[in-house]
Amino acid sequence: MTVDTSADTGAPAIRARRMGLLSQHEAIILMRSDCHVCRAEGLYARAQVVISGPDGRQAYATLYQVEDDWLAPGEAGLSEALWNRLGVAAGTPLHIRHAPPLESLSSVRRRVHGQRLSAEAYRGIVDDAAAGRYTDIHLAAFLTASSALPLDQDEVIALTEAMVDAGDRLAWPAGIVVDKHCVGGLPGNRTTPIVVAIAAACGLTMPKTSSRAITSPAGTADTMETMALVDLDLKGMRRVVEQEGGCIVWGKAVNLSPADDVFIRVERVLDIDTEGQLIASVLSKKIAAGSSHVVLDIPVGATAKVRTDEAGEALARALEGVAAHFGLTTRCILSDGAQPVGRGIGPALEAHDVLAVLQNDPNAPQDLRRRACLLAGAALEIGGVAPAGEGARKAEQVLAGGQAWAKFQAICRAQGGLRTPGVASQRRPLLATHGGRVTHINNRKIARLAKLAGAPDVKVAGVRMFVRLGDEVQAGAPVLDVHADSPGEMAYAMDYAHHNPDLLEIEA
Amino acid sequence: MTVDTSADTGAPAIRARRMGLLSQHEAIILMRSDCHVCRAEGLYARAQVVISGPDGRQAYATLYQVEDDWLAPGEAGLSEALWNRLGVAAGTPLHIRHAPPLESLSSVRRRVHGQRLSAEAYRGIVDDAAAGRYTDIHLAAFLTASSALPLDQDEVIALTEAMVDAGDRLAWPAGIVVDKHCVGGLPGNRTTPIVVAIAAACGLTMPKTSSRAITSPAGTADTMETMALVDLDLKGMRRVVEQEGGCIVWGKAVNLSPADDVFIRVERVLDIDTEGQLIASVLSKKIAAGSSHVVLDIPVGATAKVRTDEAGEALARALEGVAAHFGLTTRCILSDGAQPVGRGIGPALEAHDVLAVLQNDPNAPQDLRRRACLLAGAALEIGGVAPAGEGARKAEQVLAGGQAWAKFQAICRAQGGLRTPGVASQRRPLLATHGGRVTHINNRKIARLAKLAGAPDVKVAGVRMFVRLGDEVQAGAPVLDVHADSPGEMAYAMDYAHHNPDLLEIEA
Repeated sequence: MTVDTSADTGAPAIRARRMGLLSQHEAIILMRSDCHVCRAEGLYARAQVVISGPDGRQAYATLYQVEDDWLAPGEAGLSEALWNRLGVAAGTPLHIRHAPPLESLSSVRRRVHGQRLSAEAYRGIVDDAAAGRYTDIHLAAFLTASSALPLDQDEVIALTEAMVDAGDRLAWPAGIVVDKHCVGGLPGNRTTPIVVAIAAACGLTMPKTSSRAITSPAGTADTMETMALVDLDLKGMRRVVEQEGGCIVWGKAVNLSPADDVFIRVERVLDIDTEGQLIASVLSKKIAAGSSHVVLDIPVGATAKVRTDEAGEALARALEGVAAHFGLTTRCILSDGAQPVGRGIGPALEAHDVLAVLQNDPNAPQDLRRRACLLAGAALEIGGVAPAGEGARKAEQVLAGGQAWAKFQAICRAQGGLRTPGVASQRRPLLATHGGRVTHINNRKIARLAKLAGAPDVKVAGVRMFVRLGDEVQAGAPVLDVHADSPGEMAYAMDYAHHNPDLLEIEA
Repeated sequence: MTVDTSADTGAPAIRARRMGLLSQHEAIILMRSDCHVCRAEGLYARAQVVISGPDGRQAYATLYQVEDDWLAPGEAGLSEALWNRLGVAAGTPLHIRHAPPLESLSSVRRRVHGQRLSAEAYRGIVDDAAAGRYTDIHLAAFLTASSALPLDQDEVIALTEAMVDAGDRLAWPAGIVVDKHCVGGLPGNRTTPIVVAIAAACGLTMPKTSSRAITSPAGTADTMETMALVDLDLKGMRRVVEQEGGCIVWGKAVNLSPADDVFIRVERVLDIDTEGQLIASVLSKKIAAGSSHVVLDIPVGATAKVRTDEAGEALARALEGVAAHFGLTTRCILSDGAQPVGRGIGPALEAHDVLAVLQNDPNAPQDLRRRACLLAGAALEIGGVAPAGEGARKAEQVLAGGQAWAKFQAICRAQGGLRTPGVASQRRPLLATHGGRVTHINNRKIARLAKLAGAPDVKVAGVRMFVRLGDEVQAGAPVLDVHADSPGEMAYAMDYAHHNPDLLEIEA
């Protein structure tokens, strides 16, 4: 016998109220502890509940209870995230009950206890996570458990496949669809907009979907957003690619591998990004986006995410192994990760560097230009529009000739119009305490500094570097500027800078 | 140079408002996104903030932002947990700024990446967790990381010591202070109130602090609370023990190993309780409570927490090894964990069983009585008030003679007066689908059923068993009753029961 809980409880409806409550992604529902639904259902504070609207749409949420008259007993106050997910109007009657137990959590517990999981188990976890049924506690447990005991190749494949299947999957008329991705860890390494512009200018199809920052001060989507719209839907993205051959949009907006964005939010809080999750994250997005050929940039440096050539090569092999399982051709490029790329670190500051390179500004950071040409060259070669060994040269020509800049402008126009990245209201320099040669730049601490200044949430915040490894500096000369948009964040970042003199090392 | 952020930002005060927001333990602050503090400090939704009152008291909290007039721009709305932690009055000016980065989180990240941690690292983690500086995401990551790669003995010792030092530590005039603890996993195994009554009646000092449920339908503190006050402070606890020789209070209320309660809340959500955390949890409480001798009950059964004798003996050795490091004498008893103990499962239902045993009610569950005497006997022996091998017999005499019941009543009177455990408003039987002999009882599923009915949050909710292993039942006879206090939870539990016919197995 099955008991139909919805009929059995006869829970009366309660009416939706939009609270204007900003909670990022978190679905929160506020109800009076003395309301009839809480009483009838035995709901308590922080219970997980499932909410159904009259059109049958459902969403999971965390319940907070209120014992005060700012919420009426017949009201269900919804956070903005939940309001948008349910798509209801004010006063709509809602049905609210305990969320049923999630079978997939027993898989998470098995992994927490050190057991490996089947493909079916990963499917259950990913489907529930993508549908918003996991609390942050459950997400943190899953992500941590798959780091402390690293995922093996079978598990990474299973996770990747489940992540692809949980969202939409694109298909393109072109036989060859190229993509590029940087595994991260190097502040300012914002080559993607330049690479897409070059590749598309050379006739390749490059429908680029990017993430927002995980643990860094800026993701490509964060930077691109300061120059054009990035939250295009699938139809909008198709239109841009059909018209211009390439785009740079936020992956989330087109529902590719939606679980990835759920995982990334929690990884960002934890400041972790481990190999198995990294590979599944990168490849699930590429496979879902319909890519056939991918160039992977793996920066290696003492303070980059990948610290040694051996680790870089191991990661390259792991990426290639999983990619091959899905019929994806990859080329991994181990690049110099000893110091930040370009001058700006933070969404708008990096956008200014990108624009300078595309515009052939003589003051543009040459390291960013060289890296972009190297990666674009690899894309041209695996994409079959440049002979082996000739890609980088061809990329440089397309950039120098202005075709890349013209293409970038066209892409931005198609993405709602080219925007001018903003400038922070507050800037403060960090001065060299003594003269000498710059011998070390700590990527992690520079990134931390930019984040404390407000990046990536504050688009114009971050760090602008004035020196590179090997430069000679005078005592009292500025080595970098901190950019912030609030006095609190500026003070906060400067405090960190003054407590961490090893941000940069200068040898007399 | 150090920048004084508080002076530098000049953040103006904002006034405390009590919102009547129930969020369990979670410290939540609500502020208008357009208020001057959010603007000046660059605060965003879900930022971690530190809040200072005029008396210098500080608390960490998660910020949610409001874009609606139910909160005024000059108000800081506090959840009940935060209100109580700060101890402010309505309208008190508060200073709010970004929480500084926690150094101890880099230790958590190291463990997430599979590295072992030093004693100093555990101290940092435990101190921050106990002070409420960790979000649930960070707590989940730490607990999971110390499960997927289990803690080694040095780590368990370091964690235990840090947990003891993070709270108060009791000292008692008696040279011998006994304690008992069950590692859990067996529904209804509520021997503690009986053991304390017997031990104290025999003149031993037994200042018992108990936890609330972690993953079970009831903890001893939950059950005891239906019979007396358990949230005594240290002074109150001392008074009870000086007067009666024993007490049964909630450990949290006396601030013993406060980090343990923080960890347990998240373990409960995750439904995990791994060996290293279990040992540190148990022993930190015992050491902080000033115990010198501890009896540990380890139920072993196919569906108990410990499933085999080998696992039970390994856990016993691990517990004894860590206990010895702290000069604590332990006796581990592997007990029968094949089926629930007594009849009731859930706080009030278990209390009724405890009272029946103490009152020598002829219908009292005899298995609970025997187990209580076995454990009390071990306490009497290691406590030096019964010769080896004679403890259980002496315990039985003290129980049968009514001295234990008299002592229990005296303890409850000292703890604010004996209460009568309540009874659920709704009961529904589960009927045998066919006749035969009961061959298996699934502890985990029975516990799940009691939790779905509302236990331990709803004190009167749970399960009452009518059968034990080996009993003959007729088709259509009730095998158990589900007790609930709301139609939703009753429907929910019955639905689970009907979908899980293997709760009990009956062989024809």
